[in-house]
Amino acid sequence: MRQLYHYWFSPLSRKIRIAMLEKSLEFEPIIELPWLARHEFAVMNPALSVPVLVEEDGSIISGAYALLEYLEESYPSVPLMGKDAKSRAEVRRMCDWFDVKFDQEVTRLFIGEKIMKHFLKRGTPNSEVIRAGMHNIKHHLSYIEYLTDRHSWLAGEEFSYADISAAAHISCIDYLGDVPWDKYERAKEWYARLKSRPSMRDILKDSILGLAPAAHYKNLDF
Amino acid sequence: MRQLYHYWFSPLSRKIRIAMLEKSLEFEPIIELPWLARHEFAVMNPALSVPVLVEEDGSIISGAYALLEYLEESYPSVPLMGKDAKSRAEVRRMCDWFDVKFDQEVTRLFIGEKIMKHFLKRGTPNSEVIRAGMHNIKHHLSYIEYLTDRHSWLAGEEFSYADISAAAHISCIDYLGDVPWDKYERAKEWYARLKSRPSMRDILKDSILGLAPAAHYKNLDF
Repeated sequence: MRQLYHYWFSPLSRKIRIAMLEKSLEFEPIIELPWLARHEFAVMNPALSVPVLVEEDGSIISGAYALLEYLEESYPSVPLMGKDAKSRAEVRRMCDWFDVKFDQEVTRLFIGEKIMKHFLKRGTPNSEVIRAGMHNIKHHLSYIEYLTDRHSWLAGEEFSYADISAAAHISCIDYLGDVPWDKYERAKEWYARLKSRPSMRDILKDSILGLAPAAHYKNLDF
Repeated sequence: MRQLYHYWFSPLSRKIRIAMLEKSLEFEPIIELPWLARHEFAVMNPALSVPVLVEEDGSIISGAYALLEYLEESYPSVPLMGKDAKSRAEVRRMCDWFDVKFDQEVTRLFIGEKIMKHFLKRGTPNSEVIRAGMHNIKHHLSYIEYLTDRHSWLAGEEFSYADISAAAHISCIDYLGDVPWDKYERAKEWYARLKSRPSMRDILKDSILGLAPAAHYKNLDF
């Protein structure tokens, strides 16, 4: 069976996990802690980044950018990228929005302070950094509301990798209970629709030893 | 005519400039300093990142990821991405190598210390950061030699976006005169082949007021 090397709190891994489930592609998930720089993993992907897919014929596809586009080209029966070059450009712009901008302004702050410090036993979260993340996430939730006021999903009328990228990041923050949903009802409605998709089931089952998810994390009605 | 908003020392802008010249696409280049957050630019691309392309019909394609894939889909007569899904995955893996790993380990250090501090008048370069960049670039030059010992170009026998991504980053560092070419003859041979391509001519003409390029920057025989 295909194997997917991933890590729970890697949003890029979550994105590929969700995409593969949307496309009904079976895979054996394998947890890889990339900072351990295992020799066998470095041979597969010298960049030491997750996710990495090993196909049944042994071929290796490394990194979320290559992997996302590879999935779309190789398994097109469930399209997730848009119908023409311009709508695909909008989907990819939104992927970048979450993978670069949201990542820098929100995800890294929370994951660095609350998760990596916990795992690597490097002290307690810096409250100023967390406050900056809490401030920044509001702008992104407003942007999600701006977009979903205009069309059903983030990049248009069709569910796409734009929504998957957003879900990959936001689900990490929601695991920690740090998304202020009560002030963003329309963003919450969009996320509730996302959570109810079967492809999100595995993500919502994640429960990391010693770091339990927020009480509402798994609930479809939150 | 098409317009491309770019910035000299944005490797992602350089990448798109080179790609458009490889594809013989005419465009008017417009310098955008993204940190000024001009209102008109924010309306075009709320992420405030360069490059941004405005097509002749007025449509806007923002960000290097969306733009690179858009160019390949819309102007396929000069292919730069590889022939099948797996070779395209290798090209994209190498793009990520330079745009993420090389960027973090080399480009940002040099550009942050030597260029942004100069432009924003924020003091002199931190020599420890520069030393780290000088150390890190060696591993990347060795990797380029490892790859070009195996095939003509970085991702295979064909010139591709992998080479363009590498050139986009390395040309920024070479402008500053900080690439230790004398110790990496085979990487230098690859870069000399790149420099001789007509698509590199514009990049090699860049000369920023108050920050002249290294003496060999433009020379094809360096």
